[in-house]
Amino acid sequence: VKKLLNDVDDLLRQSLDGFGAAHGDLVEVHHEPTFVTRKVAQRAGQVALISGGGSGHEPLHAGFVGSGMLAAACPGEVFTSPTPDQMLAAAQAVDSGAGVLFIVKNYAGDVMNFEMAAEMYTGASATVLVNDDVAVEDSSFTTGRRGVAGTVIVEKIVGAAAVRGADLAACRKLGERANGATRSMGLALTSCTVPAAGTPTFTLAENEIEMGVGIHGEPGRRRIALAPAATLAKDMMDAILNETPAAKGGPVLLLVNGFGGTPLMELYLMYAQAARLCAEHGLKVVRSHVGNVTTSLEMQGCSFTVTALDDDMIGLWDAPVHTAALRWGC
Amino acid sequence: VKKLLNDVDDLLRQSLDGFGAAHGDLVEVHHEPTFVTRKVAQRAGQVALISGGGSGHEPLHAGFVGSGMLAAACPGEVFTSPTPDQMLAAAQAVDSGAGVLFIVKNYAGDVMNFEMAAEMYTGASATVLVNDDVAVEDSSFTTGRRGVAGTVIVEKIVGAAAVRGADLAACRKLGERANGATRSMGLALTSCTVPAAGTPTFTLAENEIEMGVGIHGEPGRRRIALAPAATLAKDMMDAILNETPAAKGGPVLLLVNGFGGTPLMELYLMYAQAARLCAEHGLKVVRSHVGNVTTSLEMQGCSFTVTALDDDMIGLWDAPVHTAALRWGC
Repeated sequence: VKKLLNDVDDLLRQSLDGFGAAHGDLVEVHHEPTFVTRKVAQRAGQVALISGGGSGHEPLHAGFVGSGMLAAACPGEVFTSPTPDQMLAAAQAVDSGAGVLFIVKNYAGDVMNFEMAAEMYTGASATVLVNDDVAVEDSSFTTGRRGVAGTVIVEKIVGAAAVRGADLAACRKLGERANGATRSMGLALTSCTVPAAGTPTFTLAENEIEMGVGIHGEPGRRRIALAPAATLAKDMMDAILNETPAAKGGPVLLLVNGFGGTPLMELYLMYAQAARLCAEHGLKVVRSHVGNVTTSLEMQGCSFTVTALDDDMIGLWDAPVHTAALRWGC
Repeated sequence: VKKLLNDVDDLLRQSLDGFGAAHGDLVEVHHEPTFVTRKVAQRAGQVALISGGGSGHEPLHAGFVGSGMLAAACPGEVFTSPTPDQMLAAAQAVDSGAGVLFIVKNYAGDVMNFEMAAEMYTGASATVLVNDDVAVEDSSFTTGRRGVAGTVIVEKIVGAAAVRGADLAACRKLGERANGATRSMGLALTSCTVPAAGTPTFTLAENEIEMGVGIHGEPGRRRIALAPAATLAKDMMDAILNETPAAKGGPVLLLVNGFGGTPLMELYLMYAQAARLCAEHGLKVVRSHVGNVTTSLEMQGCSFTVTALDDDMIGLWDAPVHTAALRWGC
């Protein structure tokens, strides 16, 4: 397998050490168990957001640890859920008296392990489950809809509310509201290769794409022939618009997320398609983001995410954030 | 060719339109001729920085248009120099009375076309040539060393000086100093595919990499067998350290740049290697950046850049910047 690594069994640790060294002003990396915390301690009485999941989706989640977003992230091995001891240690490290909110992507392993951590944790905790992917109900790794790039939006919005002093119940409620307002769908042009497996997770013919792909390369709705960007974009956006709670004329956030191996040039071209389709549907794109925020290693492809906004959520999205992967206002 | 696009001949325009739509608060995209300017007009009497070059290296250069960095960028077709009329129109649009500084990567076509633009332009102009790539002297596209990811550092440092009121001569001199302080080298695990060509630019065996690759996929020093990240990192860093003007104990900026298709996980792992090698050589990494800043479409691989800093350059690097791809302090 052609990757930049030393020992495949030590990939996560070495990568996290690099992350910690590159962002030493911002984060602290802990080992045994593995978790990443903010360098600056959480303000007393501020709800601490903790997320986590398999690695290979960088910058998710450690790249979103910092002021205005996550207090801690718990990375598992590549495409493998973190274990409860990681979340427990993270909770103990960052809870500053107002409890911890676990933000969990809806995959069976993550859900189970975060649940166990919440049971083990003696402080106050609550959980928000993210399930924004409209591609499929039930999949290789989950029951119900999968949690994908919309997770970043939930983390950002709730993170800002925590800074403003929202308590644990309010943070949880807002997280559920942000998740409920968010719908995503993606497609893959190529597979990713899990380092420890050494071979591509799936195989596509030269002219074939996976429509509705999951962020672990798991199957989507169907395999179709490669088509012009406008056609592919319409396929994805139709699926999203079919399920979005956004009202006609209403403000939305449009996120075009790259899966890791797609050039920015193509992502911006896809953004142009997505924005046009939103406008044609009567949605008003008032905020947007283009980039790799929830990846699948080196997979080529992208996803669209649409979040129905209101003034409250717009203000929370705009609030200052300082993390390795998202930064504005400070 | 498996890419997200509509008409290959219209790829650049459609991508730029998406870029303009996604960053409408920050930039304005102009067509015929093609150039990108800041939305907010340059302050009167502030030197206007203009860069440009072939597309396919995004976010370079349009992603660095904004306050504290470039006043305008001129994108050519993929891996093709922009034409003089683009730079001329950009200069006329953004010169606010203090002249324009062209920042040009050292490729024969770019150098020639920027020179022609400078001759045609009736206002004051000066040029900084960037040639940070230590891999090879002379290459497919150039005489002398190539300009690669170090360009971003030059643009950032000089952009901050322009904000502080440095005049054209001072900006030029600083640009030459920043370039002179900067050395880079890269490697590729896979080729890129130019959309209009439709086939990979070069071919590597399954176990082979191109050491010293250029950002258009042009040849580097040699093809070698894939090796552990520590070995590859040492190869690149030795070449850089052999030519860096950084003094032992001196402060440096370390940039680990992804070529577009490499997962962030691997980039951070490579950062860990690079930072260790700098430390072993007696260099003090006081600033760092990890990410895709100068890409080669979907090429897998990365480059290291080391810039010898002084207090002045540290302050300029830290100064506020607000562009699509780099943002802090505002």
